[in-house]
Formats: sequence, C-alpha cells, structure tokens
Amino acid sequence: MTNSGKTIEERLQALEDHEAIRQVLAGYGYSVDGLNHDSVADFYAEDGEYKVDDTLDFQGRARVAGITADAGHRALVAGGVAHIALPPYIVVEGDMAAATCHTMIPRKGDDGFYIWRLSGSRLELVREADGQWRIASRQTWTLDGNPKGPEMLGDLRKVRRS
Amino acid sequence: MTNSGKTIEERLQALEDHEAIRQVLAGYGYSVDGLNHDSVADFYAEDGEYKVDDTLDFQGRARVAGITADAGHRALVAGGVAHIALPPYIVVEGDMAAATCHTMIPRKGDDGFYIWRLSGSRLELVREADGQWRIASRQTWTLDGNPKGPEMLGDLRKVRRS
Amino acid sequence: MTNSGKTIEERLQALEDHEAIRQVLAGYGYSVDGLNHDSVADFYAEDGEYKVDDTLDFQGRARVAGITADAGHRALVAGGVAHIALPPYIVVEGDMAAATCHTMIPRKGDDGFYIWRLSGSRLELVREADGQWRIASRQTWTLDGNPKGPEMLGDLRKVRRS
Repeated sequence: MTNSGKTIEERLQALEDHEAIRQVLAGYGYSVDGLNHDSVADFYAEDGEYKVDDTLDFQGRARVAGITADAGHRALVAGGVAHIALPPYIVVEGDMAAATCHTMIPRKGDDGFYIWRLSGSRLELVREADGQWRIASRQTWTLDGNPKGPEMLGDLRKVRRS
Repeated sequence: MTNSGKTIEERLQALEDHEAIRQVLAGYGYSVDGLNHDSVADFYAEDGEYKVDDTLDFQGRARVAGITADAGHRALVAGGVAHIALPPYIVVEGDMAAATCHTMIPRKGDDGFYIWRLSGSRLELVREADGQWRIASRQTWTLDGNPKGPEMLGDLRKVRRS
Repeated sequence: MTNSGKTIEERLQALEDHEAIRQVLAGYGYSVDGLNHDSVADFYAEDGEYKVDDTLDFQGRARVAGITADAGHRALVAGGVAHIALPPYIVVEGDMAAATCHTMIPRKGDDGFYIWRLSGSRLELVREADGQWRIASRQTWTLDGNPKGPEMLGDLRKVRRS
C-alpha cells in the first residue's frame, strides 16, 4: 500500500478496504462464539464456503451461519471456547482480496484451559454489489506437521493461489 | 464503514476513530504488563470502570491505573505473564464506541507456559474533549461455560447493549 | 493520532503508516512459518537485526531471511508451529517507528498443542527510500520473570528507547 501516484480517493479506498476486511475477520469469530446467526451470515457471501483441512466442507452462507445452531458447536460454547483469529496480512486487487492469519481454539478443560486446535487460515473475500466485503472462501489447515498449512501461509502475498 | 455519500472528512474521521481505538486496546494491555501507571491512566476515562465477571469491579481511572502498583499484579508480572487482547471488532456512533474481543492470559508455570484465563471482553469507549478515545467501561466474562460471555460477544454490533 | 491542524495529506499518511506497519508485523510471522524466504527478506532492512533475549542475535536481512532455510526452524515447522504476533501498539515519528506487542509460539506436542514461548516484542522500523516500512531491529524478551520484558513493554510510547 504505497501511495505513489494515487489519488486521495484511491488512498482512502485502500485504507477502507483493509479496515473493512479486518472487521470481517474479527467480527466473524466473535459472532460464531456469540451464537449470532445473522451476524455470521452477513460476513459470508451467498455461495461462500468454509473448509477445515480436507475433512469438513461447509457450502453456502446458510450452511456456515447454521453452525451457530449446530448441537456440536453449542456444546463447545457451553463448555467454554474461543475461536481466535490472529491479525491478518491482507492483499487487495480490485474487488478481490485475501487475508492470511493463524487461528487458534483454546477450550476449558477439566484442569484449566488448553489449546484444542492451531491452524493456518486463508480467507478469500469479495467486494459485493452493496460495497461490503464478504468471505467467498475460508480454508484452515491444522499446524500439526501437514505441509499444506505452511504452503498456504507462504502464499500470503497472492490474492488468488491458483 | 461503507463510504456512500460520505465526505472525505467523514471518511478520514471514521478511519482515524477505528485506528485510535485499536491503539487503545493494544496499548492498554502492554502498559499493564509494562507497569506503566501513567500510560494505563491515559487510556482510561476519569470515571471509567473495569469489571471482571461479577467478582471484581474497579471504579475510576486512579483505581484502574493503580493495578500497576498492586502487589498481586506485580507478583504476576514477576512470575511471567501476558495480558493478551485479540483483534477487536469495532462499532462507532458519534462520540461513543464499543470494541469486542477475546482476552487471554498465559502465564509461566512450573512446567512451561499455560493459559490461566480466557475471556470475552467488551470495551465501551468515549471520545473526550481533547479528541482522545478512552475506555469508559470494560467487562470481561470468563469463557468457562457461563452464558454471559457468549451473550456479550453476540452483541458485537451494538454500540450500547442496554 | 489526533488530527488537529493536520492536512488531509498528513492524516492519510499517518493512517497509511500505521496500516503498513501492521502489515509488516503480521506478514513477517506468516512468511517465517510459510518458509517464504523472499517475503521475510522484503520485510527487513538490509542491516536489520533480530535479537532473542540476550542469547541469539541475527545480523542483517540475509541472516534473518536465512532462518527459513535453517534446519532447526524447518524441524519446528515440520512438527507444527505458529509464530504468533499479537496486535501492536504503534508510534511513528517521521521515518522512524516502533511497534510493541506480545509474541507467542504454540507448538504441536505429543499430547496436543502447548505454548513453547511467550515474549514481549519490540520492533523498530524505518521508512526506506522506496517508501516501504521495514524492520530495523527486533528484540524479544521471554516473559519468564526476567524484568527486561516488562521494562521494554512499558516503553511502548517511545519511538526510540535510548
């Protein structure tokens, strides 16, 4: 985000894009832990998807927002959990963007809190007709030695990987 | 933070508000762990309050900043501790704002580091006469299954909850 | 970052500086965990240094970026690791800046994930001739009771400590 040759409008827009994307990443996680269905839905594109490793694949806004009503998710929340997203690295090209971050899920256990999951996360976002950035796809890879996670983190500067 | 119909001044102000609030949230934690009394004080409104669950209630800037001199807090710092605030979701209306985030307190134990506390946090902020955003109230709820935490996180888009 | 008496250009520049510095802090960590040598290098000044407590001292961009090829670092990544940087508090004066944050390194262990390291971190940055902010020095102090960490965190509002 250097400003050489950019207009004030372009510079404002670039700052607003980054700020809006930060808000989506932060707000999404708090909405999930806060069981706020509509708030989760508003952060996701109609046909957005959410993939966890190569084991889970949620297709579409309704399916992702439906996690807030899922019995398994509600049991997690009832036991004490935080879906944490660390500060993202953001790249924007026109109406497409990607945000790379770590995600971590600490939980309450029998003997204090423990880290249940630790992942690399990549969110691809789109600016929709109403001007809002929404999540088009989210992929997490568990950082357990699977090389997919580091490979994805290393692509942080690419708006699209393929 | 969409920009339809906003002036450049309004758009700049909106960006500056978010940035200033991010700085308050981050700076407050590092000032507490850094035992910097005056820096903590500067982030808090004169009559600001800080509530931990329904067990602790610190009233006023002097009381909150005084934590840096508290024997219990100094023992925590001397043992190794980090009062971590995760990236906030921010909403602003005029001179009022709210920031929702997770907070986590890892500590040094006998056998490495462990997560001592994990909470949902909500900070309500005010823009004061000097133009600075300061914390008017901060409430944390431990994420141990108490429904107060998730309820608060789910209100992330409200500037005032009541 | 109050705006009294500032021009639009100055206000935009201040916002862009903070945003660019946030990107450096986030991007650096993901590049390290993503084994992206060139990306790490681009975040560091030619003569930048990286100090871990008073035990490790990496001098120069090539040495820091070379960590991505280091056998020890690659073993960490192959086992599952995240070099996490929490949200920074940023101060800027002209072409110099400092960013204070916590850093934490969770790893995969035999029995789930654990916090391997917890530190206070301070990054001093410079705006270089091409307009990019890069890391001139980074110092971390383990938060294990050593007073150096809290002392450094407490200096969060200083662009240069000495």
